[in-house]
Amino acid sequence: MLATFMYGAGDVRVETVPDPIIKNPTDAIVRTVRSCICGSDLHPYHSMHATHQGNPMGHELIAVVEEVGAEVASVKPGDFVVAPFAFQDNTCVFCREGLQTSCIHGGWYGSAETGGLQASLARIPLADGSLVKVPDVDGDSLDEGLLASLLTLSDVYLTGYHAARVGRVKPGKTVTVIGDGAVGLSAVLASRQLGAERIILMGRHAVRTDLGVEFGATDVVAERGAEGVARVMDLTSGEGSHIVLEAVGHMPAYEQAYGIVRPGGIISRVGVPQYEEAPIGFGSLFGKNARLAGGPAPVRAYLDAAIPQVLSGEIDPGRVFDRTITLQEVPAGYAAMGAREALKVMVTA
Amino acid sequence: MLATFMYGAGDVRVETVPDPIIKNPTDAIVRTVRSCICGSDLHPYHSMHATHQGNPMGHELIAVVEEVGAEVASVKPGDFVVAPFAFQDNTCVFCREGLQTSCIHGGWYGSAETGGLQASLARIPLADGSLVKVPDVDGDSLDEGLLASLLTLSDVYLTGYHAARVGRVKPGKTVTVIGDGAVGLSAVLASRQLGAERIILMGRHAVRTDLGVEFGATDVVAERGAEGVARVMDLTSGEGSHIVLEAVGHMPAYEQAYGIVRPGGIISRVGVPQYEEAPIGFGSLFGKNARLAGGPAPVRAYLDAAIPQVLSGEIDPGRVFDRTITLQEVPAGYAAMGAREALKVMVTA
Repeated sequence: MLATFMYGAGDVRVETVPDPIIKNPTDAIVRTVRSCICGSDLHPYHSMHATHQGNPMGHELIAVVEEVGAEVASVKPGDFVVAPFAFQDNTCVFCREGLQTSCIHGGWYGSAETGGLQASLARIPLADGSLVKVPDVDGDSLDEGLLASLLTLSDVYLTGYHAARVGRVKPGKTVTVIGDGAVGLSAVLASRQLGAERIILMGRHAVRTDLGVEFGATDVVAERGAEGVARVMDLTSGEGSHIVLEAVGHMPAYEQAYGIVRPGGIISRVGVPQYEEAPIGFGSLFGKNARLAGGPAPVRAYLDAAIPQVLSGEIDPGRVFDRTITLQEVPAGYAAMGAREALKVMVTA
Repeated sequence: MLATFMYGAGDVRVETVPDPIIKNPTDAIVRTVRSCICGSDLHPYHSMHATHQGNPMGHELIAVVEEVGAEVASVKPGDFVVAPFAFQDNTCVFCREGLQTSCIHGGWYGSAETGGLQASLARIPLADGSLVKVPDVDGDSLDEGLLASLLTLSDVYLTGYHAARVGRVKPGKTVTVIGDGAVGLSAVLASRQLGAERIILMGRHAVRTDLGVEFGATDVVAERGAEGVARVMDLTSGEGSHIVLEAVGHMPAYEQAYGIVRPGGIISRVGVPQYEEAPIGFGSLFGKNARLAGGPAPVRAYLDAAIPQVLSGEIDPGRVFDRTITLQEVPAGYAAMGAREALKVMVTA
């Protein structure tokens, strides 16, 4: 089969490797219908030190089940499935609380052990917890728009949704979304879905912020840094934003977040932090009782509700994809996203 | 009158200064019944650079009103009052939301402009928002225990209560309190008041943790650092604590907090942070979706409900005071608290 590996910054290769096989009775083997490239894949694409080994890449997938291990009960060959970006048993204490990204037996794709999902086939560990069947659907019969929207439920849309949910977005609230990437735009759509009164989108790319406005943004702020903070404070009568959804992961975005959050408000982060230490003392969070939330989205917790919303057309998060390529073209897909020529790239098998 | 000033680390002086006068029609002048020394006063006591000016000290007070400005309507001379540790108008947009420490017109005691409350008299700005009358009570007739408990409503008990409240303490939850100072013990009492199932108190001073057990702690962990983290993880079946109340403000306490917080749990800080930057990335908060909350307690928001609880004997937070001194003896009071010989020192007029 074909699979994607990163050997260092800017060095992505698609290689022929042995087909995956069932290793554990809880595994499934799936055949990719669509995968995609994530904003978080760009962090190593910009900074990874060169290696001889190559890291398997990809963690977003819709697929058809090929084969299941002896203990897999919830899916069978031929089922059309969505794979959350992390695998989990969906039965442990944290899974039962809806925090499947902290599953005691779960983990992340993209290791030597588990492989990545930018590939034509994949081994899915703990398949009963890690694959969700799309009911009454045959992958071949879906139109491209629905395929795209279902694919976003693997990560990007439900990551934006997680940001809004742990940020406690609700009617009457002013939400500011920092970042006009696919997660930021998803956070806008999720904020609208949760009834936010006002949604300020901070982003500089008009094509993207235009889509943000279609998704529900009521204001767009193109300025960044101190100017961006001043603009949002101005838009909020000097009070700041009840909720700030930080969908970037770099320090300047976090600095904007605590600059604009209202006293007593919430900063919800879903951009994977590219820093470990950051300001949280009296001058940033503590003095104004600002709260901080967020982390890897427990997509599995939200999937069952989101699939029907996509199938019914209630939400159309797949519009974040603006380019479709084949698996062989994945290196060019990284280059296009890395250069911001593409917002989010979908990959066919 | 007598008032307390700090001139540098270890250098506290009680000096005779002019009596305060009404400056604004919204001011009141009050005569101290009891004030006290705060754990946060110890931060400059240990680290302040020497000055010639002297900083006025103190922000906790129960008092009798002496005189009021022309626009003061809610209190009158002779009223027995509690003064929250910050002043506020209690009418601005943030005050109306219960976040009086972010009052647009409010501020902190202990400036050259406003003075400190470790003094025999004080000018209280915005008196209608900054003084709360204790109903049907004459300061002279209260016993020492009630005076002590009412004094804790100025800051320490309601700061512990704020920690527990923004930490969302409720029945069924495991709470860990870091710090056996007066705020930590108050946080234990508040956690019990809010129905926590289990309260783990981290502290090394047996006299203090014994009082913590009387206040409701179900477990005491004397170990600190990695050992302390391991002990709490052990006590929580390896899952961690739903809620961590950090009542110290130094980095090692914060490090313990993120070490023991459960995935999806909340760290609530009320110890004034003696740092600005701290770990919040993937390895500390983000990876496990831990939340961070806390800040200066909006005591004013909680006072009306707390006063009757004290007067009825439902709560007895005044037990954190283990020494009473006169105003002239305040320098010795700082020394005793600084050396941990006293838990919390009450000051008579």
